[in-house]
Amino acid sequence: MEAARKLRIDGERLWASLMALARIGATPKGGVRRVTLTPADREGRELFARWCREAGLELRVDAIGNMFARRNGAERDAPPVVMGSHLDSQPNGGRFDGAYGVMAGLEVLRALNDAGVRTRAPLEVASWTNEEGSRFVPTLMGSGVFTGVYALPEILKNKDTEGITVGEALKSIGYAGEARPHQVGAYFEAHIEQGPVLEDTRTTIGVVQGALGQRWYDVAITGQDAHAGPTPMDLRKDALLAAAELTLEVNRIGNSFPDYARGTVGHMQVKPNSRNVVPGEVRMTVDLRNARDATLLAMKKALTDAIDAIARKRRVSISTDEVVYFPPCEFAPELVGRVRAAAADLGLSHRDIVSGAAHDAVYLSRVAPTAMVFVPCEGGISHNEIENARPEDLAAGCDVLLRAVLATAEAL
Amino acid sequence: MEAARKLRIDGERLWASLMALARIGATPKGGVRRVTLTPADREGRELFARWCREAGLELRVDAIGNMFARRNGAERDAPPVVMGSHLDSQPNGGRFDGAYGVMAGLEVLRALNDAGVRTRAPLEVASWTNEEGSRFVPTLMGSGVFTGVYALPEILKNKDTEGITVGEALKSIGYAGEARPHQVGAYFEAHIEQGPVLEDTRTTIGVVQGALGQRWYDVAITGQDAHAGPTPMDLRKDALLAAAELTLEVNRIGNSFPDYARGTVGHMQVKPNSRNVVPGEVRMTVDLRNARDATLLAMKKALTDAIDAIARKRRVSISTDEVVYFPPCEFAPELVGRVRAAAADLGLSHRDIVSGAAHDAVYLSRVAPTAMVFVPCEGGISHNEIENARPEDLAAGCDVLLRAVLATAEAL
Repeated sequence: MEAARKLRIDGERLWASLMALARIGATPKGGVRRVTLTPADREGRELFARWCREAGLELRVDAIGNMFARRNGAERDAPPVVMGSHLDSQPNGGRFDGAYGVMAGLEVLRALNDAGVRTRAPLEVASWTNEEGSRFVPTLMGSGVFTGVYALPEILKNKDTEGITVGEALKSIGYAGEARPHQVGAYFEAHIEQGPVLEDTRTTIGVVQGALGQRWYDVAITGQDAHAGPTPMDLRKDALLAAAELTLEVNRIGNSFPDYARGTVGHMQVKPNSRNVVPGEVRMTVDLRNARDATLLAMKKALTDAIDAIARKRRVSISTDEVVYFPPCEFAPELVGRVRAAAADLGLSHRDIVSGAAHDAVYLSRVAPTAMVFVPCEGGISHNEIENARPEDLAAGCDVLLRAVLATAEAL
Repeated sequence: MEAARKLRIDGERLWASLMALARIGATPKGGVRRVTLTPADREGRELFARWCREAGLELRVDAIGNMFARRNGAERDAPPVVMGSHLDSQPNGGRFDGAYGVMAGLEVLRALNDAGVRTRAPLEVASWTNEEGSRFVPTLMGSGVFTGVYALPEILKNKDTEGITVGEALKSIGYAGEARPHQVGAYFEAHIEQGPVLEDTRTTIGVVQGALGQRWYDVAITGQDAHAGPTPMDLRKDALLAAAELTLEVNRIGNSFPDYARGTVGHMQVKPNSRNVVPGEVRMTVDLRNARDATLLAMKKALTDAIDAIARKRRVSISTDEVVYFPPCEFAPELVGRVRAAAADLGLSHRDIVSGAAHDAVYLSRVAPTAMVFVPCEGGISHNEIENARPEDLAAGCDVLLRAVLATAEAL
């Protein structure tokens, strides 16, 4: 493996591949509209498939449309080290979210081809179907089916707003395949951070420890409408005042707990929402996240306590409904260690980080040792046509991926 | 005037008149839809006019449709003591808002007729056009034109959402009259409180000191959208968090200043208003009220200071636009004193109170000594079909009006 220490991916080829892919579904503002199982998605898949064939890879498609491009290793039957992400985008998405992980995996295999390196375990690039969930729910559909989180027959029946099912859409683009699920030896996913931490700390590589658990709430506050003029302050039951206190409490919870705590109120609807009427009703959401399940539960308790106190103090009634619980996910320490070591060996600035959002890697981690590599994106912005990343950061992340994958392919 | 001390209005007749009027534009939920210058408004005016003629009153209509029904006094040329309010309603209004003040004035004149009492100064009942402002802006249109706040030619051009002008609407219902503005010796307006204070304190008569001044603001807060998951708490520029702090500050301002201070945030619009996105933009309103102009100005200063501090602390930009300034109005102490004395003489529970909302009396106070009499309304609710008031409270308020008017008619 001494040769491997000098091996580098081709950053220009990686960038050229990303830009060629970004022309498929390109939007006027420089983004991408490549919604899952549409003609644009098919075109993106076809380009990826052609590149895979040109690289001598063996391509398979499974029943939910996941694509697997294999480069055999010395031990043909060893479970493969898989790299991947997704080629579908948000309706007004960017050029890198998902596409980077697939193209980085392809570039790793191309670089190994160029150098004539043979690995012990086989290597694969996976492109998971419908990560975004913007046309068909749920998100993470392809990786969810592959890992058994979702049952295929039910998922194939899900419909978009036009009434088209997942099964019909898969057939219409020619990607209802026949490959059976296979064992995964290890899984790596490279991705833009979709957050501001790396840019803010001038760091090139994020060594991802896992993904935050999430608890989401719908909150309804009921007070009493009243005229703003004739109603003295002490006779009010102001639902918006209670909502404002709760918003600050959620922020306090996000700030005061350890383990990458986040607390967010993103949505608020006020009734009657008239400038001279004391609001009688507010509906709002609360989003709590944490890397540790026990801490997330303690945050939930703090939220419940805050709600009780505010309802008493403001003389309003508050109902709370937990609509999502998603447990935290911890990535495999040995794989995470290889990502960190690769960054260090390459002399790249790096730091431990968590994924605040979900990725296909979260579901893969339920069936195989998993890790992720983050690279910075401009302003932390994604799910937006102005999403941007620097070619040198994308190349650096791909070099880290190459090293971590090579080390894992030998160690499996 | 010894006979006057024993004089009482006829509470049953007052209630019957209110109920007869409430059948015009009656809604299924027990409210009234008698929007200004519509056929229902005409029908209400015609009923009032018929009752005035039956009471031997001399009726005039001015160019903005204000109606004046006069009962002459011993001195024909003395300026009249005017009682009044408005017959138009909100689109989903109640049976008492406005109608009570007009019917109470009529009942005072009927009671004087029955008792054969002759006053020194003439007495009038006024019904002001378009107090509500729900079809044509501005509110308080008729009293505003009468008192010179608005210029008649401009007001006649104002259009409703169908493009019909005030002038056209007045002609279509036959109420573009020719009476010239006349001098007013004094003005009294009886009205339901439209707030909870009298009911909350089990008081029958509100002795109204004046009306609160108002300053209204549009506030726009700009932070930065960010994903709730990947964005750590300390890297956020959360516009909703700033809005929540400002909401609590406005409440603190309302609670901490003297002179009937009120501070209300009634309207809030969040963008993008998605549960897992840190809000980048909030638009909200602030409504400050106070009985003293200097205190209202101090509240404005406190608001500005709070906004500056919040913008710095939360790293957001906040723009503020004052969209309404309405100075406080203080009623005439001698008239207010007669209202208080009347309530005391009649053995009615009473308390000093301010009007949090504007009334025609506010404009009348700019041209004549003015006072108001408040009576309780159920739950403090108005501008709503469920608006309600008790017959005995309405009768009590009318008896107070009778006494205060009689005393004033002799003193002018």
